Amino acid sequence: MAGLFISFEGVDGVGKTTQVGRLRDYALSLGYDVVVTREPGGTPLGRALRQLLLHGVSSGADDDAAAAPQPASAADIAPRAEALIFAADRAQHVAEKIRPALERGAVVITDRYLDSSLAYQAGGRELTPAEIRNLSLWATDNLLPERTYLLDMDPSQSHERLTHSADRMEAAGDDFQKRTRRAFLDLAQAEPERFLVVDAARSVEEVWRTIRADVDAVLARRTVSSSDTDRTPGDACTGAAGGAR
Amino acid sequence: MAGLFISFEGVDGVGKTTQVGRLRDYALSLGYDVVVTREPGGTPLGRALRQLLLHGVSSGADDDAAAAPQPASAADIAPRAEALIFAADRAQHVAEKIRPALERGAVVITDRYLDSSLAYQAGGRELTPAEIRNLSLWATDNLLPERTYLLDMDPSQSHERLTHSADRMEAAGDDFQKRTRRAFLDLAQAEPERFLVVDAARSVEEVWRTIRADVDAVLARRTVSSSDTDRTPGDACTGAAGGAR
Repeated sequence: MAGLFISFEGVDGVGKTTQVGRLRDYALSLGYDVVVTREPGGTPLGRALRQLLLHGVSSGADDDAAAAPQPASAADIAPRAEALIFAADRAQHVAEKIRPALERGAVVITDRYLDSSLAYQAGGRELTPAEIRNLSLWATDNLLPERTYLLDMDPSQSHERLTHSADRMEAAGDDFQKRTRRAFLDLAQAEPERFLVVDAARSVEEVWRTIRADVDAVLARRTVSSSDTDRTPGDACTGAAGGAR
Repeated sequence: MAGLFISFEGVDGVGKTTQVGRLRDYALSLGYDVVVTREPGGTPLGRALRQLLLHGVSSGADDDAAAAPQPASAADIAPRAEALIFAADRAQHVAEKIRPALERGAVVITDRYLDSSLAYQAGGRELTPAEIRNLSLWATDNLLPERTYLLDMDPSQSHERLTHSADRMEAAGDDFQKRTRRAFLDLAQAEPERFLVVDAARSVEEVWRTIRADVDAVLARRTVSSSDTDRTPGDACTGAAGGAR
């Protein structure tokens, strides 16, 4: 594929959104076509599915419009159905947005991707990480990021950074946050080629310098391998910035 | 599992609904707890998912409530996302409705189940029947019907039976109907233990007599095997009707 696919992962509050913005600006400054996206809900279908998961459905509302709506809680959704709906969101996201952008040579940066499903569903319910991973790989037709930046810090510090009350709610339960962090680190250890674990407890600038150095290396590698495989007179002069185009 | 799980399959217009009703009345008359259900859309979540598939989603409507809704056509849904949404519907259907009923010993009769996904998606798009089957088996945690009645007839005859214009539209395209019928017959041939192919071109009464005879045999077999495995003084006296309770 012509483009470059990068994901950011980590628990809430570690600064993913900020770093995604830095990388977007940097790639734009280098002249790349850049697409920034996120999961869940990277497409209209994905957002509609997400609404179903968050708010449930009115039981029997379609049979009797006059009845008062009775929102079902998300807990009423079976674990396998929930995993399949997340996978459908991801399938649509890849088919509608990510893959077409990569095919035209863009840098695609996503805030969360399949590793979040694995980390957040690990230790929970009845499904194994291997099942979730297989489902996601089928949903995406085996599309994995070329690089995944895992922003990692102690959950108690990331907790302090959260400002919205809703996010605070999400962050509730330190045990849950610790388990999820551990799950992310295990995923990174299992795929050292794809992951870069970044210490996110440092300043925004320090974190960004680490990521930028790595991005430069990834782009340089791609330039070398692309000029290795199809040498044309112009290729030698494009420099690192031309690697993904 | 204590209950008995039966599915009806076949193209539109072959009389599935009528025969499902006959079997329901018969099982009730024998004293069984009976649950009649259908796919797609056997649960509130399933119906909400079905609405998404039929009507698509408004692109960007959640970002700007003032914008005129622009319904996306169902064609905008990626094949893998569509298959995952059907699987999520089935997963919820099994977890919420079918499995609990079977666990309490009911006769569960469903109008369409996983074979419909296989038959209707066969020959279409980019997915293989094996992929769809694996997805469904995962979604249902490997729950297959004990018996599947395939109502089979020449598509030109089933076409004549349809009265609603919407159904006529669905029935349009004789090639499609023929391909789907062929796909159902191939599925039946691959699993002769589970399927009974019923000639649905005969009268309602004749079709029902065939199904009833088979149901009686299934119930008798279950009674024998259950009295084989746990003999209690009462078991020998309950007769065929007690088999699934």
